Amino acid sequence: MTIAEQIRQIAENARKASHRMARLSSGAKNDLLLAMATTLELGTPGLIAENAKDLEAGAAKGLSAAMLDRLMLDDQRIKGMADALREVAALPDPVGEVTKMWKRPNDLMVGKMRIPLGVIGIVYEARPNVTADAAALCLKAGNAVILRGGSEAIHSNRAIAALLQGEMTKAGIPAEALAVIPFTEREGVLEMLKQEDLIDLIIPRGGESLIRFVVEHSKIPVIKHYKGVCHLLVDASADFAMAEKIIINAKTQRPGVCNSLETLLIHKDAAPQFVPQIAAALSNLKVELRGDEIFREHAPQAKVATEQDWHEEFLDLILACRVVGSLDEAIDHINTYGSLHTEAIVTSDYANAQRFIREVNSSCVLVNASTRFADGNQLGLGAEIGISTTKLHSFGPMGLEDLTTTKFIVYGDGQVRC
Amino acid sequence: MTIAEQIRQIAENARKASHRMARLSSGAKNDLLLAMATTLELGTPGLIAENAKDLEAGAAKGLSAAMLDRLMLDDQRIKGMADALREVAALPDPVGEVTKMWKRPNDLMVGKMRIPLGVIGIVYEARPNVTADAAALCLKAGNAVILRGGSEAIHSNRAIAALLQGEMTKAGIPAEALAVIPFTEREGVLEMLKQEDLIDLIIPRGGESLIRFVVEHSKIPVIKHYKGVCHLLVDASADFAMAEKIIINAKTQRPGVCNSLETLLIHKDAAPQFVPQIAAALSNLKVELRGDEIFREHAPQAKVATEQDWHEEFLDLILACRVVGSLDEAIDHINTYGSLHTEAIVTSDYANAQRFIREVNSSCVLVNASTRFADGNQLGLGAEIGISTTKLHSFGPMGLEDLTTTKFIVYGDGQVRC
Repeated sequence: MTIAEQIRQIAENARKASHRMARLSSGAKNDLLLAMATTLELGTPGLIAENAKDLEAGAAKGLSAAMLDRLMLDDQRIKGMADALREVAALPDPVGEVTKMWKRPNDLMVGKMRIPLGVIGIVYEARPNVTADAAALCLKAGNAVILRGGSEAIHSNRAIAALLQGEMTKAGIPAEALAVIPFTEREGVLEMLKQEDLIDLIIPRGGESLIRFVVEHSKIPVIKHYKGVCHLLVDASADFAMAEKIIINAKTQRPGVCNSLETLLIHKDAAPQFVPQIAAALSNLKVELRGDEIFREHAPQAKVATEQDWHEEFLDLILACRVVGSLDEAIDHINTYGSLHTEAIVTSDYANAQRFIREVNSSCVLVNASTRFADGNQLGLGAEIGISTTKLHSFGPMGLEDLTTTKFIVYGDGQVRC
Repeated sequence: MTIAEQIRQIAENARKASHRMARLSSGAKNDLLLAMATTLELGTPGLIAENAKDLEAGAAKGLSAAMLDRLMLDDQRIKGMADALREVAALPDPVGEVTKMWKRPNDLMVGKMRIPLGVIGIVYEARPNVTADAAALCLKAGNAVILRGGSEAIHSNRAIAALLQGEMTKAGIPAEALAVIPFTEREGVLEMLKQEDLIDLIIPRGGESLIRFVVEHSKIPVIKHYKGVCHLLVDASADFAMAEKIIINAKTQRPGVCNSLETLLIHKDAAPQFVPQIAAALSNLKVELRGDEIFREHAPQAKVATEQDWHEEFLDLILACRVVGSLDEAIDHINTYGSLHTEAIVTSDYANAQRFIREVNSSCVLVNASTRFADGNQLGLGAEIGISTTKLHSFGPMGLEDLTTTKFIVYGDGQVRC
């Protein structure tokens, strides 16, 4: 069979298996996830042996030390994968939830019930733990899943999937509901992205170039997020000690991630007192400041911010800083340069807090809290399957519910339409 | 300017105007819609004059009488458009609704708030009333809208839009939030479908070929529905009088629409008594029956159903009929041949009703009611912007809420992440 034929068959089998997945009880799904966790732990020696093949091939190919570290599995990381499966088992099952129900004038009872999406394709890069994490979330939400990991991790991914599939077979659940694309040619991804009649959703997990490649070639809806240019506005009425604490957390706690702070906006009335304070604190922490003219009047150590700096996701200890004349000017800045990811305000003013919450339409909007909370776990979704900065279907961090849709259910007693 | 440049500018202006739309109060939006309704009624003579140009051009081009009728505006139809605007004004505003809110262990209050999608593109065919209907729904949900109607209706569409835009200007609302593509070349649609950074959603309204054209060429998410192959299962325990009444309604009340019945499934234990009864009733109403072997044993007047008949959306007084051995066999048939649109069961058995509701994952699933209720108005959504048989974002009839998304809102008092 050609690659195209094999991919077609995998997708057809996954579609068929998805009907079985959709009918599984919560108990059966949870038992499966717990059994999968145990089998991963028991299979540690085998997983480490397969992982060694990937590490060897990666070293021979000259992968960077950072890449090799992301690829590496050891006892602790395998234990981590198993624990993540147990956490997914502990989450409430979204399938079957009736999110609302109402009565029509003709006595029809109409409701909306959560159901699985069907078949979900995940395209990801080096880290092999995604194989277990993503599979667990998709299966728990009653879906079938087709995984296409990076070629560097192919032995590890296959070994993990084989253990998980073994537990499915033991439980009488079709293992085709957890498919791994078995070859590493790029043609495999391209063929997968064509199966619009069999795959309901594609989630790419990885860097911007992977995501752009998937969006470019997919006939299937893609949930994506390119970058996070997150803003924080220090209002005139802000508690400056609170603002300093939140800005330092948002910028420095983990600068390389998408919900870290990239642009600081400061109300002009706060600037004379607060700019020197925050500039000193951030400079002490080795954060490079790039400010507009007014910011630099109060913080001469700052470099000159260029137009490009307002667009930039630095992912590093660099912060663009601008003084704004009003809340409206701040919102205009965010609308012009933002990425719809996450924005925060620090304020003591009730009306400004409410306006910021209402009028800033990024996927996560915070008052008096760090942008670093824009994360599925931190917001209370349980595990996170990804984050979306496009507005269709999901917007922001995505949990189990985002792997479902709703159907209309109607209970009648003989009604016909006039 | 080239067509491409003009479309780009329209989309840029709409995007800018969408920020203003998103901040409008419900009162301002409702006042606008009511003013638009009045201006359409007052503008009737002008609309009819512009419509006459389309009718004349259509007749010269040899459009069918049915097409010309769909194109035609008269006093009553203009009154109908105005009343539809008033109905949209009367609907609750989805924007700003907090759909849920919860407290985290660190006392952060986290919620989800409905916000507009942003800019919505509507691509539609002959009927000029879509110009007013679709604009009203998009604007009410706080969006900007770009309309691209059929070339046959260009004068009518422009005249309707001009009246509506006039009311926006009077109210101080940017008229760019209601844009009409001003030329009829196909290039206009193609350019519109490329503006993925400016337009959030495309909704095609029209026949399958229009929808396929849009899906084929769009870089923007498309909400679509190709066809409705709706099924009804008569369970062994069904009240046969109720079943007959519902089947006749579902098949014959309006056979040319997507929620009419196309395939009838009958439990084998019901077949000896019910097949002769329903076959006689439907034959009396001039419905052509195409049955499987067992069905035809009890209804010799039925033609032989072919494999293709199970896939068919007849949109006519034709019904495919099959006798099934069990509820599972019925569900398998629906999974194999269905279009995920609408399915119904007629039963007196509690467990079978609940299983059908849970296990059939089409966009609308009914017990003891006609498939004809799968409609936004009938289900209680108010007006309907369209219907989706793909599961992303919306599934089934779509109302105002489906023209919004949700963002996360977070109220803190200084929390940072550890």
